[in-house]
Amino acid sequence: MNKILITTVPFGSENKLPIELLDNLNIEYLINPLNKKLTESELIEMTSDVDIIIAGTEPITKKVIDSAKNLKMISRVGIGLDSVDLVAAKAKGIKVCYTPDAPAPAVAELTIGVMLTLLRSLHVSNSQLHNGQWSRIFGRRLAEITIGVIGMGRIGGRVLRRTQAFGTPRLLVNDIMPNDSSNKELKLEWASKEKIFEEADIISLHVPLTKLTKNMVTKKELLSMKKDAMVINVSRGGIINEQDLYDVMKGGHLSGAAIDVFENEPYQGKLSKIERCFLTAHMGSMSIDCRSKMEIEATEEVIRFVRQRELMNEVPQIEYDIQSDGL
Amino acid sequence: MNKILITTVPFGSENKLPIELLDNLNIEYLINPLNKKLTESELIEMTSDVDIIIAGTEPITKKVIDSAKNLKMISRVGIGLDSVDLVAAKAKGIKVCYTPDAPAPAVAELTIGVMLTLLRSLHVSNSQLHNGQWSRIFGRRLAEITIGVIGMGRIGGRVLRRTQAFGTPRLLVNDIMPNDSSNKELKLEWASKEKIFEEADIISLHVPLTKLTKNMVTKKELLSMKKDAMVINVSRGGIINEQDLYDVMKGGHLSGAAIDVFENEPYQGKLSKIERCFLTAHMGSMSIDCRSKMEIEATEEVIRFVRQRELMNEVPQIEYDIQSDGL
Repeated sequence: MNKILITTVPFGSENKLPIELLDNLNIEYLINPLNKKLTESELIEMTSDVDIIIAGTEPITKKVIDSAKNLKMISRVGIGLDSVDLVAAKAKGIKVCYTPDAPAPAVAELTIGVMLTLLRSLHVSNSQLHNGQWSRIFGRRLAEITIGVIGMGRIGGRVLRRTQAFGTPRLLVNDIMPNDSSNKELKLEWASKEKIFEEADIISLHVPLTKLTKNMVTKKELLSMKKDAMVINVSRGGIINEQDLYDVMKGGHLSGAAIDVFENEPYQGKLSKIERCFLTAHMGSMSIDCRSKMEIEATEEVIRFVRQRELMNEVPQIEYDIQSDGL
Repeated sequence: MNKILITTVPFGSENKLPIELLDNLNIEYLINPLNKKLTESELIEMTSDVDIIIAGTEPITKKVIDSAKNLKMISRVGIGLDSVDLVAAKAKGIKVCYTPDAPAPAVAELTIGVMLTLLRSLHVSNSQLHNGQWSRIFGRRLAEITIGVIGMGRIGGRVLRRTQAFGTPRLLVNDIMPNDSSNKELKLEWASKEKIFEEADIISLHVPLTKLTKNMVTKKELLSMKKDAMVINVSRGGIINEQDLYDVMKGGHLSGAAIDVFENEPYQGKLSKIERCFLTAHMGSMSIDCRSKMEIEATEEVIRFVRQRELMNEVPQIEYDIQSDGL
């Protein structure tokens, strides 16, 4: 065992503990010197002699895995696994771990923040005032709208609990695995995705990126939404088709959208031309406490691996099944 | 009785009921044709033959009141009374009414929205992405900070209850009239304003504009705040000295500010040059439901006055005392 590559950036910048843990491990480590999300070819070049990757969301494809001859472990800082070819990793006996719980509170809170901002067009007003314009824009309160949440996992559930504190009267929810237990606590109404698109005033997506969810929201779904409805994607780029969202909003449909994740990051696309699109730089998990927790948990898992202790956050079988079956 | 002037704009734009109520009253009425906040001289010109003003926040000064010979009633759409010279109105026997409860839920919800936006620098990221830049900015969650609220009335109390739903561990509060009852329910910590400025990570102001609160927050208070703290003013322009806020933030102090109200509106000042200032166009009460409620309540009070029924929302004596004593 001789080398760890940390591809995710920032790393150890706010809380130094992950760095200290690595220093104590006495193994050579390198933090992504390009300080940006790596491409497949950059990854191939940088992982040629690497044993362990402490990974962000860069594409750890079959090609990367096949070329990284020494690779034994991928420790994801975060929850999404769309960036890792799990099947290829398993075929090579590479362990894959993640930090599924740590980001949830930060992502849920950011979701409520963008929801309240969209509802009152605060981002539009801020742009206007910074450009010397003044226009008092009407908005709506959470207590008078219908919210639709697609994906009722760790994050979607938290979002729903938070919105209920604001008195939202109607919560439509959909998940690939319907679950009655949360129904009673939160007074949720299970609904088809079609019904959610048609009836919700704000729709928030909290699903992983899989073959099934890629392009889940296209022109058809967006146009089936109310003209003044809004959509939020803080999950993964590609779940909403970006070109379709641009076309639909350019045409005057939807009163707002909040997009924190993009097919290609850093994002350079056309949504930036639409003022009522609230755009943020993949900051869902970027609260100091949650990000630190993610980095520490991913590093501790690496330490357990190096010391041949039992791993605590190995990716469960269901995630492999989802990728191989295209669920 | 022959003429009503509606100075506040917008009016009856989202919910037509206030207009219908006035139509049924069979009294001539005029909605502010300039479609902006009126100046003192515009008001003097437009109120020369007016009996009733359904008022916004334009300056109904002694000069206006003295020149409006027919004026018998001022019905404020909203809660703030800083714009009305209550003493001058009383001297002329002019009734003054307001809608103190209607705006509170909308203002409180907007406050939480700007708080979450500030904490994660979402407004800064949105500006950057609309300008082709990408930078993942760290933020904080409500569950890990100290919030300071100055002013524990209808709005401040609601803000505190909402933040508690996010698990905020420490709530410092100050009010001109300390009140123990809310203390137990919300686990509040009463504190001096000085202590709040020094110890809170976010300070939100929920006080009326009076002689005592004008310039309550100057360079001295802002510089006593933590370097990365944030301040929110959704109450009235002038409570935070705008020039001082600009100077302090220009100098690098404070990590954010959210300002919804300004000394002169429409605002054209220098805060627009500071990217981390989240600026909105006096939109605290601008949710469709609350704004409609305010307009309807103010109009219904006018109808009661015209029909010589008992008024329901006359401004209480304490408000007159505050203005005359400079409390």
